[in-house]
Amino acid sequence: MNTYGSRFRVTTYGESHGLAVGAIIDGCPAGLQIDMEAIRHDLSRRSYGAPRQEEDAVEWLSGIVDGVTLGTPLAFAVRNHNAKPGDYDALRHLFRPGHADYTYQTKYGIRDHRGGGRASARETVARVVAGSIAKQILKPIEINACVLRTGPELSNDTTGGVVECSIEHLQAGVGDPVFGKLGAQLAAAVMSIPSAIGFELGVGFDAATMAGSEYVDQWDSSADGTTVTNHCGGIQGGISNGMPVVFRVAFHPVVTLPQPIDCLSDTHNIETIVVNGRHDNRHIYRTPVIVEAMAALCLINAIS
Amino acid sequence: MNTYGSRFRVTTYGESHGLAVGAIIDGCPAGLQIDMEAIRHDLSRRSYGAPRQEEDAVEWLSGIVDGVTLGTPLAFAVRNHNAKPGDYDALRHLFRPGHADYTYQTKYGIRDHRGGGRASARETVARVVAGSIAKQILKPIEINACVLRTGPELSNDTTGGVVECSIEHLQAGVGDPVFGKLGAQLAAAVMSIPSAIGFELGVGFDAATMAGSEYVDQWDSSADGTTVTNHCGGIQGGISNGMPVVFRVAFHPVVTLPQPIDCLSDTHNIETIVVNGRHDNRHIYRTPVIVEAMAALCLINAIS
Amino acid sequence: MNTYGSRFRVTTYGESHGLAVGAIIDGCPAGLQIDMEAIRHDLSRRSYGAPRQEEDAVEWLSGIVDGVTLGTPLAFAVRNHNAKPGDYDALRHLFRPGHADYTYQTKYGIRDHRGGGRASARETVARVVAGSIAKQILKPIEINACVLRTGPELSNDTTGGVVECSIEHLQAGVGDPVFGKLGAQLAAAVMSIPSAIGFELGVGFDAATMAGSEYVDQWDSSADGTTVTNHCGGIQGGISNGMPVVFRVAFHPVVTLPQPIDCLSDTHNIETIVVNGRHDNRHIYRTPVIVEAMAALCLINAIS
Amino acid sequence: MNTYGSRFRVTTYGESHGLAVGAIIDGCPAGLQIDMEAIRHDLSRRSYGAPRQEEDAVEWLSGIVDGVTLGTPLAFAVRNHNAKPGDYDALRHLFRPGHADYTYQTKYGIRDHRGGGRASARETVARVVAGSIAKQILKPIEINACVLRTGPELSNDTTGGVVECSIEHLQAGVGDPVFGKLGAQLAAAVMSIPSAIGFELGVGFDAATMAGSEYVDQWDSSADGTTVTNHCGGIQGGISNGMPVVFRVAFHPVVTLPQPIDCLSDTHNIETIVVNGRHDNRHIYRTPVIVEAMAALCLINAIS
Repeated sequence: MNTYGSRFRVTTYGESHGLAVGAIIDGCPAGLQIDMEAIRHDLSRRSYGAPRQEEDAVEWLSGIVDGVTLGTPLAFAVRNHNAKPGDYDALRHLFRPGHADYTYQTKYGIRDHRGGGRASARETVARVVAGSIAKQILKPIEINACVLRTGPELSNDTTGGVVECSIEHLQAGVGDPVFGKLGAQLAAAVMSIPSAIGFELGVGFDAATMAGSEYVDQWDSSADGTTVTNHCGGIQGGISNGMPVVFRVAFHPVVTLPQPIDCLSDTHNIETIVVNGRHDNRHIYRTPVIVEAMAALCLINAIS
Repeated sequence: MNTYGSRFRVTTYGESHGLAVGAIIDGCPAGLQIDMEAIRHDLSRRSYGAPRQEEDAVEWLSGIVDGVTLGTPLAFAVRNHNAKPGDYDALRHLFRPGHADYTYQTKYGIRDHRGGGRASARETVARVVAGSIAKQILKPIEINACVLRTGPELSNDTTGGVVECSIEHLQAGVGDPVFGKLGAQLAAAVMSIPSAIGFELGVGFDAATMAGSEYVDQWDSSADGTTVTNHCGGIQGGISNGMPVVFRVAFHPVVTLPQPIDCLSDTHNIETIVVNGRHDNRHIYRTPVIVEAMAALCLINAIS
Repeated sequence: MNTYGSRFRVTTYGESHGLAVGAIIDGCPAGLQIDMEAIRHDLSRRSYGAPRQEEDAVEWLSGIVDGVTLGTPLAFAVRNHNAKPGDYDALRHLFRPGHADYTYQTKYGIRDHRGGGRASARETVARVVAGSIAKQILKPIEINACVLRTGPELSNDTTGGVVECSIEHLQAGVGDPVFGKLGAQLAAAVMSIPSAIGFELGVGFDAATMAGSEYVDQWDSSADGTTVTNHCGGIQGGISNGMPVVFRVAFHPVVTLPQPIDCLSDTHNIETIVVNGRHDNRHIYRTPVIVEAMAALCLINAIS
Repeated sequence: MNTYGSRFRVTTYGESHGLAVGAIIDGCPAGLQIDMEAIRHDLSRRSYGAPRQEEDAVEWLSGIVDGVTLGTPLAFAVRNHNAKPGDYDALRHLFRPGHADYTYQTKYGIRDHRGGGRASARETVARVVAGSIAKQILKPIEINACVLRTGPELSNDTTGGVVECSIEHLQAGVGDPVFGKLGAQLAAAVMSIPSAIGFELGVGFDAATMAGSEYVDQWDSSADGTTVTNHCGGIQGGISNGMPVVFRVAFHPVVTLPQPIDCLSDTHNIETIVVNGRHDNRHIYRTPVIVEAMAALCLINAIS
């Protein structure tokens, strides 16, 4: 399933070393003047410090005339200019530890071994473009994510971290009871980002060791629906309560190590190689804009 | 959206103090002899230590003849025998802190104020029945959840905790790339359980402070696809790798406190009341079977 | 798939000789006072002249307090009081010609042989209840269906016919381009009714032999968007144009003949039997209310 | 909704005079060697006799390496080489009779007035490519459509007709009871084709005037599940019975007349113009390949 959303549906495509990555956005309102500069800015946040420096130019194939949306599907393509498939020849018969090489091969019986193929974080280009448009439509709701903490910075190693995201000016009443709780929808949205490994809302895991009387967010004396604390992260019974929605996402370190690595071969041996591709030791600084994109795509679908 | 799943679709209904709670299960295979005793056992785990002691008898309305499924929708109802709506009259115009009272009223302009209505954990009866059937179909895959730790045990207060769930004997290749990653699907499934507030896969939030070389699960020397460690929790690139899938869910304490509580009134005052309903101070021991149910419903849909 | 709709989702259940038939309606707006008398009236239209005379009493299991909807799922059950399973014992190993006996057995490897089971038109009880609620919500849009013509009336035989349905006061702009054309959605809705075998919009099949200049609906001189003729049936490019939407549905005769019938046995013989069940020779008069129900369920989902 | 299907999902995009039309196909099996020549052949059937003669070259953006599918989304683009937007300047403020100009403008408040934009049959290019791949996967099932009859052939006018489609070698057991009847799914699929106005299965509308004893398909004496006649069109109770599935689709004449036409202006006048675009008087001969495509997309999703 390469589609996200029900009302504002984003269907992405593309392998990291194929011709292009991109998406079709279906359900974008008509008459919207798209801020292309905001999209470029978000794309540059996504490639910040990345070893693969290429300009991510978005080609719009449909759905826009004179910069204004028609209400029909927005299709776009971002070409993969800088692909060097040759870098990856050694990996054709090897499964790197920690990667999706083995699981893709098991699931599909075939894979694009060049740079991770569909499993590469290159795929998030399409999310960022779509998320940037969603953020424009959602205004005055503000979605901001930043790196809260990172792992140790070591030479010859990679680092993960935790990103915190806050959603301000979201009205009360967004989200659904039962299976479509807003927290569940946000969790699914951001846990689909490559290398995400944990999600928590409000005080999150700390809530497990708090007494109930300590945890409960008391009504503010203004009696206008605001609360003194925001332990719950702005969501009660799956529905936003008008306080800021706050959540955190844990990312594990990039698993492409700048070291010799022991791979499993398809002939059932262990082989040590050094990957000649480009490395990305501290990807955590590139994830906030992706977290924002997924939060925006989540919200624009949750708001009826 | 009160439906979970695409292939094995569970649509639940019911308020805690209405006539019944239940569900329609659509997509259950034909010819299955349902183990009703296993369902009863799981329902008793769900009501373990609950203050509202009633026998949760399942009435099957369709889809079964002589205990065998027809492939048509399984509809069932569990009557709410022990409802005491009178207990809740004081709450008609009040919004309890920490509850969904306020958010439901904002979203719908109306709510069933009796015992939480649709927001009550009574709704999970339907999930447990459906999950119990899913677990039967999934065998030999084993899904087991248990309480890993709880909050402080205090008189006159409530307690949360962390539940750990492991899925054994799951084949490699389950889950989807991009938006339908198995971890994202599991996160959405269990974060939809009332009072769930955090989710982590494998080492989870600890991964954020590990070096990449420490985090990466190395291939076992057997070269059969197993790994020495299981930091990733059995999922790589969104797809199961054949190792046990392990995740944890944090639950906040029950927000119905056995103490005087300060409510917001619909006339914008703060009013202190003592709730005469039945309390459930340590619900954490009732959640593992619900976690198992949601994991089972997630898996049965993810396995193609 | 026993669910119809995306916003106003109806999931039905029940076999004709099981305990009950019914549905869950998810997505019904909150605060709606349901007109129960209108539902009873539509149910009586559905059972008009039917040989199986039983009162179809609707038991509401959830979603309603004091006759007003809560915005939560509406679950209901209609008991099958008058079932006589014994009538059908002879059919356990036989497949009647023209029925779904053979196709169900092939698909599921099992079937409820009593009175058609899930394939019985008894299932349409749930559609009529849901459709009746949809019609209430859709007002002032008016949906009216009637029998346009019937087959020959012969003693000891059954009859089909054509039902015409018109939708008045539907605003322009309803329906989607491409796959979700309003005509396509209506076609799917009504072709799902038991014994429906043809659908046409506006002049329908006659359009195939008209010249283009004759077919095109010319603008009325009032220049307000109305047209002089309505050959297209009120839909252009898949979207309503403000004129009445008009369509017709062909129904084949009931295939349960009041005559000796030659059945296929599961041991590959042909056996002649006389079915002792209750017969329904002229069901065409019971179909308009079902056509209205499906048109209403279609529209309430198509109107955003 | 520009997506068709659940398992084999086709999401199309593109306006007739924009940069390109195309689609993303999600759910295509991995390891399939695509027959590109078959796609070219089907595209040439679609453009047979069309006034806009351009080579429909398919650019594959993702999902294929060395002509073999990866199991990831197949994205493709077909450029609109021959667009002459200038031809349509006169239509900017006019709504042609019989077209989707008025309904699009009402629905979206904006439209691409050039050659019909999204409402143009140019959009069917994407369906034909996807359908061609589906037909390859469905083999040995054979889907063949042909023109059964056409309207009068007049100079200076346009013509519609009826297309018949047969599906051979389809196993029994395909299709769903209740809302997902195979006939309903086929009806929705083909009624979504531009200018489709009627659908019938088997004997279709003629069934309305047959006696039941005449209509019922009797078992063949071979007692192998085949029937002597095939009035029902190969579907009983919504499920295929192993006989050929046969249906017909009525198409109205193209509404772009090669004559002066009276348009409604957005200032509420009637204005007579002569459209200088390219005309397509007898499009009926181009529709069979589109009917086949939609039948194939329907089947590949219906077969579990």
